[in-house]
Amino acid sequence: MAGTGNVSVMNFLNEVAENYPAAISLAAGRPGKQLFESIDAESVSRWMTTFSRQAPVSNLWQYGRTAGIIHELIARQISRDDGVPTAGDRTVVTTGCQEALTLCLPQLCPEMGDVVLVRNPTYIGITGAAAATAVEVHALDNTIVGIEAQIEKAIEQLATEKRRARAIYLVPDFDNPTGEVLSLEERKTILTACARHHLVVLEDNPYGMYRYEGDIIPPMAKLDEVGCVIYLSTYSKTIAPAVRIGAATLPETLFGNRTMRIALFDAIVERKSFVTVNTSPLCQAMVGGLLMERDCSLRDWLRPAVDACRRNRDAMLAQLAKCFPANGVPVCWNHPKGGFFLCLDVPLRFDAQAVTECATQEGVIVMPMAFFSFDATQDHRIRLAFSATEPERIHAGIMALSRFIGRRCGFTGQAHMRLQSPS
Amino acid sequence: MAGTGNVSVMNFLNEVAENYPAAISLAAGRPGKQLFESIDAESVSRWMTTFSRQAPVSNLWQYGRTAGIIHELIARQISRDDGVPTAGDRTVVTTGCQEALTLCLPQLCPEMGDVVLVRNPTYIGITGAAAATAVEVHALDNTIVGIEAQIEKAIEQLATEKRRARAIYLVPDFDNPTGEVLSLEERKTILTACARHHLVVLEDNPYGMYRYEGDIIPPMAKLDEVGCVIYLSTYSKTIAPAVRIGAATLPETLFGNRTMRIALFDAIVERKSFVTVNTSPLCQAMVGGLLMERDCSLRDWLRPAVDACRRNRDAMLAQLAKCFPANGVPVCWNHPKGGFFLCLDVPLRFDAQAVTECATQEGVIVMPMAFFSFDATQDHRIRLAFSATEPERIHAGIMALSRFIGRRCGFTGQAHMRLQSPS
Repeated sequence: MAGTGNVSVMNFLNEVAENYPAAISLAAGRPGKQLFESIDAESVSRWMTTFSRQAPVSNLWQYGRTAGIIHELIARQISRDDGVPTAGDRTVVTTGCQEALTLCLPQLCPEMGDVVLVRNPTYIGITGAAAATAVEVHALDNTIVGIEAQIEKAIEQLATEKRRARAIYLVPDFDNPTGEVLSLEERKTILTACARHHLVVLEDNPYGMYRYEGDIIPPMAKLDEVGCVIYLSTYSKTIAPAVRIGAATLPETLFGNRTMRIALFDAIVERKSFVTVNTSPLCQAMVGGLLMERDCSLRDWLRPAVDACRRNRDAMLAQLAKCFPANGVPVCWNHPKGGFFLCLDVPLRFDAQAVTECATQEGVIVMPMAFFSFDATQDHRIRLAFSATEPERIHAGIMALSRFIGRRCGFTGQAHMRLQSPS
Repeated sequence: MAGTGNVSVMNFLNEVAENYPAAISLAAGRPGKQLFESIDAESVSRWMTTFSRQAPVSNLWQYGRTAGIIHELIARQISRDDGVPTAGDRTVVTTGCQEALTLCLPQLCPEMGDVVLVRNPTYIGITGAAAATAVEVHALDNTIVGIEAQIEKAIEQLATEKRRARAIYLVPDFDNPTGEVLSLEERKTILTACARHHLVVLEDNPYGMYRYEGDIIPPMAKLDEVGCVIYLSTYSKTIAPAVRIGAATLPETLFGNRTMRIALFDAIVERKSFVTVNTSPLCQAMVGGLLMERDCSLRDWLRPAVDACRRNRDAMLAQLAKCFPANGVPVCWNHPKGGFFLCLDVPLRFDAQAVTECATQEGVIVMPMAFFSFDATQDHRIRLAFSATEPERIHAGIMALSRFIGRRCGFTGQAHMRLQSPS
């Protein structure tokens, strides 16, 4: 089980960051400063005023509706920006998307032996939420076969252990940690498999609007025809992490059954009342006011942040190409079409010790892909985040990383020799 | 187990309130409007600015420290206002106190058979948090013997069932739902019993500053000499529920063991990272800014709210004395020295049906004490909240309640006859 292991990963990385405050971090998956550059304390006050003038809220300072007060606005924004057909009465506003995970998981997997499927590697937040709610996680095989076959195999294997897959967690657009995208075809076959096995998809879409190239692929919640996708959204990457506002939107029916969907929604809301009572109405009012000002679309609002992030990605790709010459060095990486991350395959086992050594010797902090993994398949990979680091620091960071890897692998190619010189 | 039952209680009351929007509510345990009268969107902006000018926070909009950024300020406020000796490094800022409960409970009761003790009746939030985290609850006997004897008996009984009490949840000042206070003597004997049995006290103190008469009794966290009290605080009743800021402060050592306390603190913080990631830095900045402006004491700030609440309590006590004449009618109530609630003993079984009938026939909503209970001992009692209802509406509400009770009990005393007349 990766859950428990992952918990200490966060602490480990925080410690490294604390111990090397001047280091360049390519580890943190956070939005860049361009996202908040135009906002300040006065924006907050303006948004709150906008919201409270237009919304029928008796008292913004008091306790409020457990499922939230900006559910209709969020539903409209999801519908406009992501194309997901939704409605406020099946949207619960949560204290960030992380709370949505901890609310949904135990409701979807209530019995002993109920299991949530995840990819391998996968986002730390889902294994953490599962650990916190005592829900079992089963990782799909990391193979080249299609994901539908992976799901079928997992379900079969679980059945022999008298366990049952109840849900699958996916980040179809620009996955964390790999940056990969599920194709339209893959999304459709997964949905077919989920319909067949009554498997609920927890579709997490924090990065969908950060697309730098290529056509938009519809979210699975939009493609869903049977009622199996719970759509998870967040404003951490589109307004600011500090607002701590996310949402879970349930399908109109749960596998055709509207009563079951309503029961699930009510159970999630009840659980929320005992975890955080309700999501801060002040934070909701901020987000609500901004959504009102922007007619419930954040695409224009987000442009500067997306442009900055694209520049960062391009800078990272260019510098990787410069620092890791293809001739003879078995280093390769993917070309993410969006999101915050890319994935680097390196010719050495990159573990916690390597992180510390790389920070000590070269002043750059990176994230071993093994931290997101359930087995040894990811031991030679690194997750590189380009979202919150400016191009110059990305240049320096990749150069430093290439020095570290070159030295550790005994690589003495010309490019590295040059990079290692004091100049 | 009351946990599951209590979940639907909240929904039931919300429904009643929705169905009778004009009804006078003596049910909701929320602060009165005097608490927020002086604040608006601009206060929020000012507090945030105050905080960010003075506190070393690099970016208020970004993700932040999991255990919070105003921990030092909160520790100082708890120390100044409640007299609890504390320190920021063992204070975790939570998304309201409710989150603190859901974080502490599973850490204190990790094994099958680990149990949290509660009083009977007790606060719905603790049974809800226990249900949400799959922690077992055991209610103390509702008897006239001292609480220490109740604890000893519970521990003994649990032992015969191979279960073990790990923690006890208490609201020593102006308990919810009863309004009662634990005496200094009781606090000390409980602490002795807890030390003997390695039982952690979860001391919840939302109402401590709402004292209307009598001397302050030190919180158990102040009296704690062995390291067994986790002090839970909230700003929902001292600033505004909407800030959703609470805190859990651990003792310096856990039963003399500092390493164990640090391990518990770290585990709680790790769990938090998977429930809500971190508490909204914006909400923290609001609270932090206000605390800075007030030199970390909210006693003066709170005076208008406390005065209003005292007036409400006095109005309720006076109207009870007027509407329920002592001669012959077996109705009685306690005289709470603070807090939000009082407890009314009535000569009829007051259940969900009675709530609905009372709302329909008399336009007043009250809270059956049975909703907070684990057995039949509370079936003839009502919790009356005076915190958020103005004196005139309290007058009308109590009069209406007395009509309902008088009619239901076939009481035809002169006072009630008069009250029932159209004038």
